[in-house]
Amino acid sequence: MSNVLVLGHKNPDTDSICSAISYAYLKNEMGMVAEPIRLGEVNNETIFALETFKFDHPRLVTQVSKEASQVILVDHNERQQSAEDINEVQVIEVVDHHRIANFETTDPLYFRAEPVGCTTTIILKLFKENGIEVPPNIAGLMLSAIISDSLLFKSPTCTKQDVDAAAELAEIAGVDAQSYGLDLLKAGADLSNKTLEDLISLDSKEFEAGDRRFEVAQVNAIDVEEVMIRQKELEVLMANTIAAKDLDLFVFAVTDILNNNSVAIVLGERSGIIESAFKSSVVDNRVLLPGVVSRKKQIVPVITEALS
Amino acid sequence: MSNVLVLGHKNPDTDSICSAISYAYLKNEMGMVAEPIRLGEVNNETIFALETFKFDHPRLVTQVSKEASQVILVDHNERQQSAEDINEVQVIEVVDHHRIANFETTDPLYFRAEPVGCTTTIILKLFKENGIEVPPNIAGLMLSAIISDSLLFKSPTCTKQDVDAAAELAEIAGVDAQSYGLDLLKAGADLSNKTLEDLISLDSKEFEAGDRRFEVAQVNAIDVEEVMIRQKELEVLMANTIAAKDLDLFVFAVTDILNNNSVAIVLGERSGIIESAFKSSVVDNRVLLPGVVSRKKQIVPVITEALS
Repeated sequence: MSNVLVLGHKNPDTDSICSAISYAYLKNEMGMVAEPIRLGEVNNETIFALETFKFDHPRLVTQVSKEASQVILVDHNERQQSAEDINEVQVIEVVDHHRIANFETTDPLYFRAEPVGCTTTIILKLFKENGIEVPPNIAGLMLSAIISDSLLFKSPTCTKQDVDAAAELAEIAGVDAQSYGLDLLKAGADLSNKTLEDLISLDSKEFEAGDRRFEVAQVNAIDVEEVMIRQKELEVLMANTIAAKDLDLFVFAVTDILNNNSVAIVLGERSGIIESAFKSSVVDNRVLLPGVVSRKKQIVPVITEALS
Repeated sequence: MSNVLVLGHKNPDTDSICSAISYAYLKNEMGMVAEPIRLGEVNNETIFALETFKFDHPRLVTQVSKEASQVILVDHNERQQSAEDINEVQVIEVVDHHRIANFETTDPLYFRAEPVGCTTTIILKLFKENGIEVPPNIAGLMLSAIISDSLLFKSPTCTKQDVDAAAELAEIAGVDAQSYGLDLLKAGADLSNKTLEDLISLDSKEFEAGDRRFEVAQVNAIDVEEVMIRQKELEVLMANTIAAKDLDLFVFAVTDILNNNSVAIVLGERSGIIESAFKSSVVDNRVLLPGVVSRKKQIVPVITEALS
């Protein structure tokens, strides 16, 4: 029970996995016994990063309180995105780059959130502030997270700090950010081995706005129509999720990583807000979102505002 | 409407005022137009610090939304401790050392909380991280905040980081931390010009635990009995506050700054929890709390736990 578990959010993306590994490494170097874990399956993009830089998958732990009394959250802070039994352990640190919500402690803690594109951009600062060197393979993972979260620096969430951190990490890792980055994104956009259930659940997050609950799932694709051709089947699965989780709205966004647009399927009792919120016509439950690639910056705040 | 307001909590203490001034100075040096403000009267201890280092009182602003669209919170994050109209402005940054609760944003922000004894210990790091020098008079204010929050390094909230920061700031300010510190605390413990209403309201904070609401007021004193001799009158005022704010519990702690103990008056429907929570007898609504000097670390978590 003495290890501190370091965990990213449910349905982990590359940032959640790579932040957990790199921050646990930093904490271990600083004398804490910390272990990176994951709350769910590792996606294709993350597998590509882990294989490139020769890391095993972090251990899957679904009940953190059976393993530890203290945890560190990376890449998330909202309770509903964390381990199911997060209330039964003490959160001693948070390193994140998202909005803050549904987070409460009884004691002071280390909470470091910054409005940058990727958690590992902040973790790089923490390496420096603590005088610890970033090893090349850890640098590769941290770079992968920035490329993933910023869609190779094209997302509006990407800041100068992310670009600078990526350049520094690419040099330490000894890779070319552009060519490695494109390979990484393509690995993530390979949907060939995905079921329809995977598409709407693997990178999906729940949010609350006032009394309303909504979920936004996102997949990256090279050929958006390859996904949208199965819209009717996807809608059946989405409707099941809405019923099971009592959601007011479910948005499933397919993001074209080469052209930086998204197409979304929107379902739920409150889907009527989408048209005016995004100023785009909803036809047959489908809406085109030109220039929208970021769930965090371009989708969630717009829906939160419209539902509140 | 273009200034960013930097504010500490209601009923400002020395840390809230000095953090607002020093962080606004840092942000101005970094190119932001930021102004420190205060939400209430400045206490005797803070007046002593401001006079020693030759600062004016920050401007009193009670309705922040009339003055600005963006604010930075220092030394607090809980909504009920902030400006009344805090929901009408955007919080762009938080620098704090308290627990996190009742705080939510729609967008990512810079949120820096660390489990140290004083906000200005964190602000000193931010000066360094941004390569800005701390001027001597600002260093004096930052030192005053650390001395105040740590009761001259004797509070259990005081960390090695606070002690080290204070030593560094004392050198920049050109003062002796011990002798200046004792003068500062004595100025704060001078209750001669305080009304009974002042005592229970000037350094008072509201908290929530589950559905329960409680308030903890604290005064520092050199002679605790000088305050407690007026217990019956204080209880009348406390009962009025309980009724007006619909509190479940009101704790008024008088802290002996020379001997590092507190005596508290406890009132309210839920005052029955105090005896077992603090393992100390309550006689005539009065309880002795040996070794208790920190509201944040030794009073609030204990009550929160007992009420939850």
